[in-house]
Amino acid sequence: MTPAQHKPDRPIAALLVPDILALLEEAPGDLAAETEEMHPADLANVVEAMPPGRVGEFLRALPPNRAAQVIEYLDDELRAEFLEHVTTEQAAEIISEMTPDDRADVLETLEEKTADDILSDLPDQARQETERLLQFEPDTAGGLMTTELVSVEQSVTVEEALAQVRAAARSGLRESMHAIYVVDTDGKLVGVMSLRELVAAPEGASVADIMHTEIVSVPTSADRKEVAKVTSEYDLVAIPVVDGFGRIVGIVTVDDVIDAIVEEQTEDVQRLGAVQPLDDPYFVSSFWDVARRRVGWLVILFVGEMFTGTAMRAYEDTLAKALVLTLFIPLIISSGGNSGSQSSSLITRALAVGDVEVKDVLRVLMRELGHGLVLGACLGAIGFVRALMWHSGPSVSAVVALSLVLVVLVGTVVGAMMPLLLKRLGFDPALASSPFVASAVDVSGLVIYFTVARQLLGLG
Amino acid sequence: MTPAQHKPDRPIAALLVPDILALLEEAPGDLAAETEEMHPADLANVVEAMPPGRVGEFLRALPPNRAAQVIEYLDDELRAEFLEHVTTEQAAEIISEMTPDDRADVLETLEEKTADDILSDLPDQARQETERLLQFEPDTAGGLMTTELVSVEQSVTVEEALAQVRAAARSGLRESMHAIYVVDTDGKLVGVMSLRELVAAPEGASVADIMHTEIVSVPTSADRKEVAKVTSEYDLVAIPVVDGFGRIVGIVTVDDVIDAIVEEQTEDVQRLGAVQPLDDPYFVSSFWDVARRRVGWLVILFVGEMFTGTAMRAYEDTLAKALVLTLFIPLIISSGGNSGSQSSSLITRALAVGDVEVKDVLRVLMRELGHGLVLGACLGAIGFVRALMWHSGPSVSAVVALSLVLVVLVGTVVGAMMPLLLKRLGFDPALASSPFVASAVDVSGLVIYFTVARQLLGLG
Repeated sequence: MTPAQHKPDRPIAALLVPDILALLEEAPGDLAAETEEMHPADLANVVEAMPPGRVGEFLRALPPNRAAQVIEYLDDELRAEFLEHVTTEQAAEIISEMTPDDRADVLETLEEKTADDILSDLPDQARQETERLLQFEPDTAGGLMTTELVSVEQSVTVEEALAQVRAAARSGLRESMHAIYVVDTDGKLVGVMSLRELVAAPEGASVADIMHTEIVSVPTSADRKEVAKVTSEYDLVAIPVVDGFGRIVGIVTVDDVIDAIVEEQTEDVQRLGAVQPLDDPYFVSSFWDVARRRVGWLVILFVGEMFTGTAMRAYEDTLAKALVLTLFIPLIISSGGNSGSQSSSLITRALAVGDVEVKDVLRVLMRELGHGLVLGACLGAIGFVRALMWHSGPSVSAVVALSLVLVVLVGTVVGAMMPLLLKRLGFDPALASSPFVASAVDVSGLVIYFTVARQLLGLG
Repeated sequence: MTPAQHKPDRPIAALLVPDILALLEEAPGDLAAETEEMHPADLANVVEAMPPGRVGEFLRALPPNRAAQVIEYLDDELRAEFLEHVTTEQAAEIISEMTPDDRADVLETLEEKTADDILSDLPDQARQETERLLQFEPDTAGGLMTTELVSVEQSVTVEEALAQVRAAARSGLRESMHAIYVVDTDGKLVGVMSLRELVAAPEGASVADIMHTEIVSVPTSADRKEVAKVTSEYDLVAIPVVDGFGRIVGIVTVDDVIDAIVEEQTEDVQRLGAVQPLDDPYFVSSFWDVARRRVGWLVILFVGEMFTGTAMRAYEDTLAKALVLTLFIPLIISSGGNSGSQSSSLITRALAVGDVEVKDVLRVLMRELGHGLVLGACLGAIGFVRALMWHSGPSVSAVVALSLVLVVLVGTVVGAMMPLLLKRLGFDPALASSPFVASAVDVSGLVIYFTVARQLLGLG
């Protein structure tokens, strides 16, 4: 096998499957050596492209530490299936090769009984570390962190620190050594330095001389959004996690931060589409689970939208007198909805990345009022011409044009204010999803349209 | 000043402004020492909370290397303003303290004339590095990468390599040393190892013995989505960038990858809301620029939505005979739009994270047909009861119910297929934004509704 110079996509990984299955058949003993040069993420892609029945055989043919690496990169579903079908001893052997945070993550995806059995089969130290990590909520700094880190006391010299680091590195620490943390005699985090800085330090210096004391850390309870924000704001590759006494208890590494950012974004996009966020990837989620998560919002939106019927009943006689008005109903209410969803996505995202805060409400309002007027005027002008072309006559065309200006204005302002209001009330601004704003705006659009029609056409 | 134990939010940074301004007034010479313990990202927050007129004075009171760090964390707008108002020499002095990738990024935000002046005032080596980086598109691996990296030849021993690394670290390399890259005599990338592995290696070993040859790299032309995907898939903290000959020319560090992921996501959310992505944060973008980016899509959607009027004109006589049908128009078309936007956000996101691929089209279709039927049946049942309660009579109620089932089914399928189709045609699937799907679905919703009505009510 040649080294994976670029990431083989899943289709390419699938091409390797026949070779690997043949090898497994003919010379399983050579498998480890033949695949040694492949990145574990690539091997995981190969495993995912394999017939499910051969996965166990393949993984058992690899040495446990190698199998552990591959398993860390597997889909949750496939991983759980494999671990639930080998003996508890085999599972424990593989899991004990993982870093403590991955170990806890994997156990969380298994059935509780299986996870408990495997846990009790782990070596004592690994079991204790893992149990401690399992106590934290998965979406907090405590749940994301690993306990594998290198810390030295502030009183030691650069040479002593380097010797400790070398010893830790040789003892099989598996996480990259992103930073060396400096603690006082109580274990309190007082400084940090990179391995590079330690290596480059003049001989004879003390650790306290070269460490940085401007430490950025998060408490174990910080939620993953906060961890991601701090990591991104300070350009960190690992962020220390401290307990209530300021003692360092773990680090969250940037690969887990990226995973957290991607998951958080998936949830935001699903909320924007009015779907209660899924826990699993699209095909992995069960049909009925997805249906359940969709039907809730859809029914709420449907019930909200029923008020459009109520509004129209109130104007039934206006409609009867000028049936031509019906032709423009979908056009007018959708324009309000579209401009509303533009504003709500702009503001929801600006809140998420910190460009806008709740206290900016007035500035946002002024800006969106301006945009609403400009956009409403554009659509109103086009609508006026279109209505004339449909021979609707100048008065009906004027009703359409004026309604469009007002509806777009209302849509823009409601769409922009909704996420700010939700955030102010302590809800997730992404709940101001486009269709949600659209429903609210549809009703007001109808009321505006018929009110304008009654006034300008002298009906009602 | 106490060390920043946790990230001071902007409101907290604002509290420090009076103290810092007073210090600037009374003892500007002490400013550097007094703020020495603060993280540059925190100082940047303080600068952003300062009256704009004092920013220049404050930054000039800091030593150039410190000012450079703070400036790297500033908002683009504020940074450009500051750099355009100091002398070219001062700007060049500050910019030459930055890492090459940040230097190129900063110059790209300035007016071309200013950027050129500063560039020609940089020391020779810095100018050449920066000019080379400026040649790459900002959103590619070449545009994101820094040229500061440590590479050693594969023939050297561990001791020689460590000595080279120490020398590089002491010579003022500013990026963290994420990995040591191993090259052959032509500069071709052949291996990689972490600083930890080099430090932990047995004495006398050769670099070739301990390096990993399973190298993951990207070409300079790789776009930022690809860089982010590879970094996330392989859990990297830095990814090497190679030229057409496989020679390493730079690295993209994970902090820049996170920024790229966040920006890409912002664009996706804006596209989902039918806004052409903004280049700058919400308040930084000019009013007319935002209006321009909104009006385009809004007009396209408006013109698309005009077909609802065309459709309704075709059914004008049906409407005249059963005016009660108008009451349900907004309800029916919005249900199609809402279920469509659920499907399009689910599938767009699943495509973005790689859970679904274009070749899965049949599996997606089957699943969404199922969801459409289930969701349509729920809304149809509720709609039937509601129509009866409005005394619409059993036949009109049946028309409403059957139309809802069909409209939701069509919305769900169109919403799910649109992103797959767009991707297949080489467009961005996020263009299948919710309101875009909604417009397409509105027209078909009306046609379905009136066709069902004509058949069941015997009209037309």
